Amino acid sequence: MKLTKEQKKEILDQQTQKNVTKRVTSTELEKILYEAMPVLDHGFVRVVDYMGDDTSIVQSARVSYGKGTKKVSTDSGLIKYLMRHRHSTPFEMCEIKYHIKLPIFIARQWIRHRTANVNEYSARYSIMDKEFYVPSKENLAAQSTNNRQGRGDLINGTQADSILKILKEDAERNYQHYEEMLNEKYDGTIIDNKKKGLARELARMNLTLNSYTQWYWKTDLLNLLNFLALRADSHAQFEIREYANVMMNTVKKWVPISYDAFVDYRVGGMELSAKGKIIIQKMIKGEKCDIESSGLSKREWNELMNSFGFKQHLA
Amino acid sequence: MKLTKEQKKEILDQQTQKNVTKRVTSTELEKILYEAMPVLDHGFVRVVDYMGDDTSIVQSARVSYGKGTKKVSTDSGLIKYLMRHRHSTPFEMCEIKYHIKLPIFIARQWIRHRTANVNEYSARYSIMDKEFYVPSKENLAAQSTNNRQGRGDLINGTQADSILKILKEDAERNYQHYEEMLNEKYDGTIIDNKKKGLARELARMNLTLNSYTQWYWKTDLLNLLNFLALRADSHAQFEIREYANVMMNTVKKWVPISYDAFVDYRVGGMELSAKGKIIIQKMIKGEKCDIESSGLSKREWNELMNSFGFKQHLA
Amino acid sequence: MKLTKEQKKEILDQQTQKNVTKRVTSTELEKILYEAMPVLDHGFVRVVDYMGDDTSIVQSARVSYGKGTKKVSTDSGLIKYLMRHRHSTPFEMCEIKYHIKLPIFIARQWIRHRTANVNEYSARYSIMDKEFYVPSKENLAAQSTNNRQGRGDLINGTQADSILKILKEDAERNYQHYEEMLNEKYDGTIIDNKKKGLARELARMNLTLNSYTQWYWKTDLLNLLNFLALRADSHAQFEIREYANVMMNTVKKWVPISYDAFVDYRVGGMELSAKGKIIIQKMIKGEKCDIESSGLSKREWNELMNSFGFKQHLA
Amino acid sequence: MKLTKEQKKEILDQQTQKNVTKRVTSTELEKILYEAMPVLDHGFVRVVDYMGDDTSIVQSARVSYGKGTKKVSTDSGLIKYLMRHRHSTPFEMCEIKYHIKLPIFIARQWIRHRTANVNEYSARYSIMDKEFYVPSKENLAAQSTNNRQGRGDLINGTQADSILKILKEDAERNYQHYEEMLNEKYDGTIIDNKKKGLARELARMNLTLNSYTQWYWKTDLLNLLNFLALRADSHAQFEIREYANVMMNTVKKWVPISYDAFVDYRVGGMELSAKGKIIIQKMIKGEKCDIESSGLSKREWNELMNSFGFKQHLA
Repeated sequence: MKLTKEQKKEILDQQTQKNVTKRVTSTELEKILYEAMPVLDHGFVRVVDYMGDDTSIVQSARVSYGKGTKKVSTDSGLIKYLMRHRHSTPFEMCEIKYHIKLPIFIARQWIRHRTANVNEYSARYSIMDKEFYVPSKENLAAQSTNNRQGRGDLINGTQADSILKILKEDAERNYQHYEEMLNEKYDGTIIDNKKKGLARELARMNLTLNSYTQWYWKTDLLNLLNFLALRADSHAQFEIREYANVMMNTVKKWVPISYDAFVDYRVGGMELSAKGKIIIQKMIKGEKCDIESSGLSKREWNELMNSFGFKQHLA
Repeated sequence: MKLTKEQKKEILDQQTQKNVTKRVTSTELEKILYEAMPVLDHGFVRVVDYMGDDTSIVQSARVSYGKGTKKVSTDSGLIKYLMRHRHSTPFEMCEIKYHIKLPIFIARQWIRHRTANVNEYSARYSIMDKEFYVPSKENLAAQSTNNRQGRGDLINGTQADSILKILKEDAERNYQHYEEMLNEKYDGTIIDNKKKGLARELARMNLTLNSYTQWYWKTDLLNLLNFLALRADSHAQFEIREYANVMMNTVKKWVPISYDAFVDYRVGGMELSAKGKIIIQKMIKGEKCDIESSGLSKREWNELMNSFGFKQHLA
Repeated sequence: MKLTKEQKKEILDQQTQKNVTKRVTSTELEKILYEAMPVLDHGFVRVVDYMGDDTSIVQSARVSYGKGTKKVSTDSGLIKYLMRHRHSTPFEMCEIKYHIKLPIFIARQWIRHRTANVNEYSARYSIMDKEFYVPSKENLAAQSTNNRQGRGDLINGTQADSILKILKEDAERNYQHYEEMLNEKYDGTIIDNKKKGLARELARMNLTLNSYTQWYWKTDLLNLLNFLALRADSHAQFEIREYANVMMNTVKKWVPISYDAFVDYRVGGMELSAKGKIIIQKMIKGEKCDIESSGLSKREWNELMNSFGFKQHLA
Repeated sequence: MKLTKEQKKEILDQQTQKNVTKRVTSTELEKILYEAMPVLDHGFVRVVDYMGDDTSIVQSARVSYGKGTKKVSTDSGLIKYLMRHRHSTPFEMCEIKYHIKLPIFIARQWIRHRTANVNEYSARYSIMDKEFYVPSKENLAAQSTNNRQGRGDLINGTQADSILKILKEDAERNYQHYEEMLNEKYDGTIIDNKKKGLARELARMNLTLNSYTQWYWKTDLLNLLNFLALRADSHAQFEIREYANVMMNTVKKWVPISYDAFVDYRVGGMELSAKGKIIIQKMIKGEKCDIESSGLSKREWNELMNSFGFKQHLA
């Protein structure tokens, strides 16, 4: 991630603002406001605005005239209760806005979360940045053999080199052809004054899916947590997880009580099915239980045993 | 609207907060933050939080690193352009949160706007306030004779008196019976120590629809404007219009450029159908045009002529 | 619930339709299509339309050209997998539309589920039905003493009689006054030809919250299951649970495989927090564990032990 | 667009289904159900399911027990009224599901319409089809000089040839490299048995944005019309307009009355601002009006005059 001089100055200008407000403020989040936190090779996450803090959740849950309750301990108890019982609307009362730079193939995963507001950089209107995601060697994984939707062992040696070469060269060549069709360089220089350039909305189709785009993405705390529960999870694709991890940290700074409750009840928690619950009950009572009598498929049985770390019970 | 001493103090406590923030602030909106602005006989509208201002719209439309553009004139031109062409996503980048007290039958109209976050005072959990909406005499209108969904002439004299008497007495009696069933007064006093009280979630069903409820209601600027376009309109029910009018004023203070564009393009604007456009073209050219050849129904024709104030052309 | 002769005929007319379609059909659901299934004293649930069946979930999950897979066993395995891992979008591919008659105070709970399409009977436009919900004696519960949002013991004897008397009389009186203000009976008869009637949008405010309203409510299977997970649950208010139970049965007829998976993984399932999981692990291993070392609050500890039925471990 | 033998058979199997249903059916839409209607060079639009027809709109607007009204003329009048006054909820009562094959850069525009249900072909899980969009020569437009977001004159001759060559060659080379990295051909053949293949979720990043993807896309009539109003419009990018045009035709077959109202009030209609309305009023009255006194910007003035076809008034 390379910011231009001008971009750095724009960010700094915002960071040196000192406005007085009657609104609640989140001291820790203010410290990193507007900062471009690097993700992957050229991406970033910036918090550009927010509304509310932990007390706002309490305040709206109580529909109160004032600022939640007086004591932090009471607030904390209520927030934990709300999180535990999956109360949703109070967590919608906090809002956050990010500026994010990310590869297009990740943007396409991301946008599937519909309950958010988005303004993306327009490639119909502007020229795309000349930046592409190329994985680092330690992330160059083979297709998983037992999970059709995941990664397996690392790819090494010459095969790895050859893959990285393809990714770099194809992205660069396609971008160069993009400029050629536009008859314009990424920095706005016209290539050939006697030629017209292809419409931007058409030329962009030649770019590769690892090209970086950027957008403003705004959502409420509830939907942000839903996003993070899925995307900071170990089953998420590594590249989107890298964004989710950086955002987890912004949540921790913004609403620390909610963050702790989220980590306890959602991130570290698990779901038990009706059948799974019966098995756990039996195991606690020391009763015999096996896959045959459980009603579970082999896959389910293993998922259950794995989640409790009972390796000896794997089918 | 009567605020208790404690409520007044809670509001004042928030209003005297002076927090320093790097976020953009709206100077005019800050001035009325938390204030309970009266609506109808016992209702109010309070702005309790907000995110962004006019520059945020520009900033996100441009996906910029800094704070929109430098010049107000450029921002204004862009905002007007976006409003005129019904661009929606940039207006979603501003968010506002209200605390509102309103009669239940109005709350039921209001909640039909789904794209908002709501926490309502819970009558399963708490005792409802002892307040009911009773229209003032100048709003006691008869059913309209030509619009099945509206109001016609005023109702006067003894009939008006008798109606107001009914509304007051029925609301009060039903509330008194509500307390009796709960075995508890509105202020928490137990009525008969030897009795149990009916569950709150049941007792509430005896209340009338003009009982006041309250909620926290949070939405983005786009959806707020959609709400106001419908509810500040002359076809809206008077009671909800009173709320919309007060909220219009908060929008004016918050995002004055967007407000002006909204008033020009939406509130004061109109839609023409394909057939209506042909008629207007003919009228401008001075060509003859009448309802028969227009393809319009009588109702449509009149709606069109009325909206331009051409009384002589009414069918 | 009393349907008029005309309403019965309209329902019958629809039920005797025999249209040929290339769309998938749900044989069991077709059998009860349009039928008014009674709920509470005057309410009902009617399925009036639907789109898709279990195979549609598979079809869209696979983005296939044909009709899901060939074998029911494969479909079933996939649907269970999707439900277990909380995949959401395939379940959005089935849609259902209900016509529901329900008391207003329940309608107000219901409408908090925003991801649905609703058309409610308009009391601005029409006169409300003369029907009110009055609980049966066996549902007349006192306020719970340990759960501020629920019901406790039954209320009996003269207190029960007196409560039922209040509910009936107040609803009826208020309705009579509603007619008086409208100057029109529920059946459209004008009361006094020399008088005007109060606007319907105003007169309705005198009605009690147990008055029945009705609406068309359409949603997709995912959001329907979310609704049912909350509203068919034992913590839901009895009155809305009665609707949810009837609807559970319609889901069973419509998409039996999804229904079974829903019952296993959601209805009968539970969530464990990170801390709760550690306790269960210890219990299974036969290690000592108590509330002090658990990091759980007393409330949480009890919720956990209760959900596994371990009475002896209650704090 | 080339369907495989198996795909054709799957489609035919569905088309030959003859199920009996009590649901309303749309005769004209049934005729083209499941059919793959070609769009662009390799794309298609298939209607795979639907719920409701024109009568469903009336039925829900009236919250009726039966099937809308008896007479088509009454239904038609109501639907036109609802469309003219932008009533929204009755149009949400019809639902349609499409299977669509489209280039990724178009899918990215499309997905900005959030109020729809989507299941996209997963490139984490499966290998993408070997198909890319290449514009035909008559659509190879230069960047517009007066509209930063559109197309201008055609690009001809050798420049056109060279552009088409780039698009084809880059897409094909990148796809070939995609296969090489996967160590697997598009048809599943393993390339080198001694090698592992790169994870699919990574390899896909090398594909170009004109690669075809496909999805199931389901939405209600209201949101479909909102989509079409924007995407069948002359300002929409040509490629997405091609899809919108085919879908317009499916709406015409499905709900012909709503379609006509949509064409009259939305597609062929226009919006007038408050200031614009004053100008039109003056022009009709034959009063002098010019841009100076109008309060309109030059751009706005021209947009207004253009929309009425008054060329002589252009600024």
